[in-house]
Amino acid sequence: MNPKIAIEKKREGRPLDDAEIREFVNGFTSGEIPDCQMSALAMAICCKGMDERETATLTDVMMRSGEMIRWPDATPTADKHSTGGVGDKLSFITQPLAAACGVSVPSLVGRGLGTTGGTADKLEAIPGFRVSLSLDEFRRTVAETGLSLATQTDEIAPADRKLYALRDVTGTVASIPLIVSSILSKKLAEGAGALVFDVKCGAGAFMRRREDAEELACALVAGSKAAGRRAAALVTDMDAPLGFATGNASEVAEALAILDGKADLGDAPVRLETELSIELAALMVSLAKETSLDDARAMCREKLADGSAAAKFRAMVAAQGGDLDAFSARFAEPSAKFRVQSMRSGYVASIDARKVAEVALSLGAGRAKPGDAIDFAAGVTLAVGVGDRVGLGSPLATLTASDAEPDALEEAAGELVGAFAFSRGPVEPPASLVISRI
Amino acid sequence: MNPKIAIEKKREGRPLDDAEIREFVNGFTSGEIPDCQMSALAMAICCKGMDERETATLTDVMMRSGEMIRWPDATPTADKHSTGGVGDKLSFITQPLAAACGVSVPSLVGRGLGTTGGTADKLEAIPGFRVSLSLDEFRRTVAETGLSLATQTDEIAPADRKLYALRDVTGTVASIPLIVSSILSKKLAEGAGALVFDVKCGAGAFMRRREDAEELACALVAGSKAAGRRAAALVTDMDAPLGFATGNASEVAEALAILDGKADLGDAPVRLETELSIELAALMVSLAKETSLDDARAMCREKLADGSAAAKFRAMVAAQGGDLDAFSARFAEPSAKFRVQSMRSGYVASIDARKVAEVALSLGAGRAKPGDAIDFAAGVTLAVGVGDRVGLGSPLATLTASDAEPDALEEAAGELVGAFAFSRGPVEPPASLVISRI
Repeated sequence: MNPKIAIEKKREGRPLDDAEIREFVNGFTSGEIPDCQMSALAMAICCKGMDERETATLTDVMMRSGEMIRWPDATPTADKHSTGGVGDKLSFITQPLAAACGVSVPSLVGRGLGTTGGTADKLEAIPGFRVSLSLDEFRRTVAETGLSLATQTDEIAPADRKLYALRDVTGTVASIPLIVSSILSKKLAEGAGALVFDVKCGAGAFMRRREDAEELACALVAGSKAAGRRAAALVTDMDAPLGFATGNASEVAEALAILDGKADLGDAPVRLETELSIELAALMVSLAKETSLDDARAMCREKLADGSAAAKFRAMVAAQGGDLDAFSARFAEPSAKFRVQSMRSGYVASIDARKVAEVALSLGAGRAKPGDAIDFAAGVTLAVGVGDRVGLGSPLATLTASDAEPDALEEAAGELVGAFAFSRGPVEPPASLVISRI
Repeated sequence: MNPKIAIEKKREGRPLDDAEIREFVNGFTSGEIPDCQMSALAMAICCKGMDERETATLTDVMMRSGEMIRWPDATPTADKHSTGGVGDKLSFITQPLAAACGVSVPSLVGRGLGTTGGTADKLEAIPGFRVSLSLDEFRRTVAETGLSLATQTDEIAPADRKLYALRDVTGTVASIPLIVSSILSKKLAEGAGALVFDVKCGAGAFMRRREDAEELACALVAGSKAAGRRAAALVTDMDAPLGFATGNASEVAEALAILDGKADLGDAPVRLETELSIELAALMVSLAKETSLDDARAMCREKLADGSAAAKFRAMVAAQGGDLDAFSARFAEPSAKFRVQSMRSGYVASIDARKVAEVALSLGAGRAKPGDAIDFAAGVTLAVGVGDRVGLGSPLATLTASDAEPDALEEAAGELVGAFAFSRGPVEPPASLVISRI
């Protein structure tokens, strides 16, 4: 295989042979093929695409670049992957719910960058929680508690880790085949028999247009099936943040409240995220255990209501060294706080998730570049959802941070107000966050 | 300027600002921007193109990355550039012809790679010839003899040298804006007031289709004019090799025979290459001296016939240390030789220039990779041209090399036979090599 010839072939829009894809990726992973050739190929793929067979081969070679976990055949296994949104704490509800229904859930999770939060960072808000496990610890935690949320180890899909770092700096992230192979190489290596994808769509998501989100969802499902897994995807609304809380500690706290039955389901944002968590967990259960979706849904509702899901989450946190009492004590009362009030009266017509995320980021809730420190206490907690009626001076949100000058909080508050749009007449909150089912 | 944002912009097909192009290229040249980002941008340009303004800016920043030569305002200056063909020794005839007509010709020439020969390599077949001059030596040779053919010095367009090396390994050579800016950044830095382009088209050329060659020719002329130069281009036929000789020493010898009036213009291949040399030189002269093309043509014919062009060539060779007597003695009789005979009778319908070049390459006339040694004696000298009548056993060509096993020569002969196509009925040789004028 001549790397230059392969690059030229893709540049001309022709499909690559399986052998070319395998040798190129393996050569890049081993360091034989330099970054400049890999980034040229990645850009050619961005511009000219890859067909389903090429994408499946690319996924396969990246998956096989590292360890592949195997689970006993008799164990139903599943995982859920979200393409990333704002206030997306569903992994803390959906994954424990599926585990409570008897499905083993090995879930490798990522860190946040820019406006997209990372499940791994949120978990680290829990004092003592070890998100970085060895492959053996990960296997053992899943076997013992039915569930583990941990970061991608060095052993899993090293080709993807190396390629992703290169794509990040070479403007070659936005490509369906590259996104699909990156996600699937890790998710398939987890060894779960069933995969459920929550493809976010809207202002706060990577995919803003419904047709792009659906294309990605279809490609993820097709790629999973090509690898012999059962799979489904939901394209879900990410115009407004999920739930009320955006911020590492506050999202864990909101998820705990839902798991513990302490959240008020009369509030539309909380009801919508709870329903979506249940729907995603039900898909995991029905695919993993090959039962009907209705049965799986009923089981999920029961396991949420009776506290089994909460128990699964607590067991996993304990197994990974986390202390939820210390968590509650530490984040009970943030030291810096600012209440954002409405300067209008009317109905909340929309809340721009991206703007909310930018304000949370500016308060310290995320990283501008890899390696930046995170303030777990920082974030935006909304007081209203779409459809809520507000009057002059009504609370819209609370800004929090461990340590912030009043001026900085006030500036952030000014920014946050711009995230809200109001209507004079009544506005209906969405009935469901599910836009389409794949 | 954020390199990643600029790459993404081009990936989406949007034009780059002038400042983005300048900062990207300068950052790459200084080493601030890594190869992986430059190759991603180069591929995005291959796939999405650049408009005339972007191409002019890219050319300008690459040209200004190094020294720009200036000539006295009163001196008419011109150069001719060929996009590369097989048996293309026109620079040894055209450039001296223009110089003999009173035009100063500063001509930076390249090395060959693959099947395309390089003017610099051919000149090095002349014992003692120094093709690598300092910028001062180059200036002085042009001032004293009216002409210099030398390789691109480190001072000229270093951005192009660095970018070209990267494009060569990343499959990003085939892009009109990148080709144009690479050629023009060097040619404009030579400081000549007029530029003539010989854009080769056909089996032995980089551009195989007429419309591609014309697009490149138009872009070269437009880019030269945007930089304030007078310019013209010919798209010329490169289906069959130019003239009879393909090989470093044999091409110099053929050019000398034409300059010295010793070539038989009754042979179509020699007549066609002589006419094309005159046409290109006439364009140089008419643009540089702002005279009519007819007058320039007449003057070129005269300067070729009276030996002035030959004298210019000899003066330049002497100024750069070359010894043409030693050249003639050394290559008078090649040590290894093989006559290829026809196994058919009929008329020569076509001679595939690329196949001829491949055979010459296999005999040692070129480089498979940069730095390979070249056998100056190696090559293919055709005995017939398109339209010639051959019988069984008629000579088709002679293969030469400094040192080759009879088996290797015979194998090459077998390959060469495949370059010829025959016709039972008479075939007209082309009346002219000029396909179109830009």
